[in-house]
Amino acid sequence: MPDDVILLADGGGGERMMELVKRQILTRFGPLDPSGELAKLSDAARVVTGGVELAFTTDSYVVRPLEFPGGDIGRLAISGTVNDLSCLGARPVALSMGLILEEGLDMALLGRVLDSAARTAREVGVPVVCGDTKVVERGSADQLFINTAGIGLIMKGADGKPRQLGAAMIRPGDRVLVSGTLADHGVAVMSKREGLRFEAAVESDVAPLWPLAERLLAACPNLRVLKDPTRGGLAAAVNELAEAARVHMRIEETAVPVRPAVAGACDALGLDVLNVANEGKYVVIVPADEADAALAAMRGHPLGREAAVIGEVLEGDAPGPRVTLRTRIGGERVLELPYGEDLPRIC
Amino acid sequence: MPDDVILLADGGGGERMMELVKRQILTRFGPLDPSGELAKLSDAARVVTGGVELAFTTDSYVVRPLEFPGGDIGRLAISGTVNDLSCLGARPVALSMGLILEEGLDMALLGRVLDSAARTAREVGVPVVCGDTKVVERGSADQLFINTAGIGLIMKGADGKPRQLGAAMIRPGDRVLVSGTLADHGVAVMSKREGLRFEAAVESDVAPLWPLAERLLAACPNLRVLKDPTRGGLAAAVNELAEAARVHMRIEETAVPVRPAVAGACDALGLDVLNVANEGKYVVIVPADEADAALAAMRGHPLGREAAVIGEVLEGDAPGPRVTLRTRIGGERVLELPYGEDLPRIC
Repeated sequence: MPDDVILLADGGGGERMMELVKRQILTRFGPLDPSGELAKLSDAARVVTGGVELAFTTDSYVVRPLEFPGGDIGRLAISGTVNDLSCLGARPVALSMGLILEEGLDMALLGRVLDSAARTAREVGVPVVCGDTKVVERGSADQLFINTAGIGLIMKGADGKPRQLGAAMIRPGDRVLVSGTLADHGVAVMSKREGLRFEAAVESDVAPLWPLAERLLAACPNLRVLKDPTRGGLAAAVNELAEAARVHMRIEETAVPVRPAVAGACDALGLDVLNVANEGKYVVIVPADEADAALAAMRGHPLGREAAVIGEVLEGDAPGPRVTLRTRIGGERVLELPYGEDLPRIC
Repeated sequence: MPDDVILLADGGGGERMMELVKRQILTRFGPLDPSGELAKLSDAARVVTGGVELAFTTDSYVVRPLEFPGGDIGRLAISGTVNDLSCLGARPVALSMGLILEEGLDMALLGRVLDSAARTAREVGVPVVCGDTKVVERGSADQLFINTAGIGLIMKGADGKPRQLGAAMIRPGDRVLVSGTLADHGVAVMSKREGLRFEAAVESDVAPLWPLAERLLAACPNLRVLKDPTRGGLAAAVNELAEAARVHMRIEETAVPVRPAVAGACDALGLDVLNVANEGKYVVIVPADEADAALAAMRGHPLGREAAVIGEVLEGDAPGPRVTLRTRIGGERVLELPYGEDLPRIC
């Protein structure tokens, strides 16, 4: 009875999760939101109040294990929410943090994770201004879950108006970029969880990307999209964008930056690099004539050294698959929205 | 080794939780917040950005069972965050909702809870604009946890400036009120959990209180405090306020409204009514000359029919206990901040 109970695949960031969210959430809460922000299912919602335009977002973090090469749940919880805000072109202003602790949780582990969260918040100068702490009985949670929500102030353009980023801004001819190598986060977490060792160390890319967003906003007056390719990876991100924008996209497989150790690990684990979660990368869409400026802006910052142009937005709204991949051997295949959960509890 | 691992009592809203939050959270995140909002540990934080004054708050809900007489986790998750915002005199503008689902969760139960959440949001006209869905393996959570965060716009006074509510506004001579009967929520949840039956049905008071706040803001130009006596009940709320304001308070036990069935249930369960959680009540502090107006404003609304003046703020910042209770039999005893967790997972 796959439709009567929740399955792990319902949380994977793929097609099943989209279906669940549409059926269970949008039908009920969509009608209450005249702004239509919820229905966009974007990284953050635009909230206009008191004459200012804000970004507002939330994520719960359930990653297992809590500490992994390159990061931990604390760094992840701050970075993820900062990154979602920045996808609307919003400077992070304030964060909340809700902790669900399992009875028996090691206090030293909690301390390390909170140290890491505080360090990460300091990197981007954003305060945690409110929070909540709940404790549940042993066996009713898995050590520690963290929820963060965030408020950001949407930056203004040269015309004095708040910047407008999002799928609705995408036009045929635009270029698709990524800010660096893909799949590092998912592979780092999985290799730690499975006790795998690879020849070269693989570390998560988890990082707060606001400094990179700030550079891109300055360099590209017509920046269309910043998107956070987390669960479901690049494949989910570009499919969601193409669907929302009613366009097609073509991605060049050879242009996608991937560390050799990560590519090897994906082969070993039976994963597709393009479906694996990232926690410190943007998918960036700009007009063709701003692609060079976007590349230069990113490559000039440590978080964007390996940025690359990986594809383009195509003409037309023909039926059929939205995203195609020109493969390494010169063929072309559909790049699908992943279905379910290759990697449970990756973030 | 009670200090090396998390105990259930660390989440009870009492002295132990305050210690945990101070030691683990404030030491790390306090220095990052120049506004000092986090350190206030109030129901919501005041965030000033783009020239507007906002309230921002979050809570995670882990109540067990998910459905109880008078409410469920969905109604609780919306009400709790709306109520926290309203404690700053802020109209709720937008909510977020993060779901952590256990694999195997009954989809019909999820649907009922989300229906209830949507109905509650509609009652106060606040949209859920963003959210997140995570699924964890069977045994890694207990069915369903919900986090909500919220943004509110702080209402302006007759002088055109944002209203200032909070412990810092309290003055000796002020009156302490509650908006209705106490302990209904905690007793309803506990009786359902323990399978107890009482002669009269006990229902949770869970409700979004913004309409009551709006009336109080209009009726009392010098409204000092609205506070949500949830975990730790009235005793925790007045102790936190008295401590933050550096004043003493005296509460009249006979003036505190309690339903007979709830009083009886507390006796049977070995609970102190004054320590039990409420989810649809305010503690209200006003200058003495606005107490009648506050009472009338509350009693004129269904959510405040049984509002009462229950005590007063006393002169002086003498050392020793902050809050005393004049008892039913005419004596006086200290009303202490509860220590730990009488009622785990009550909200």
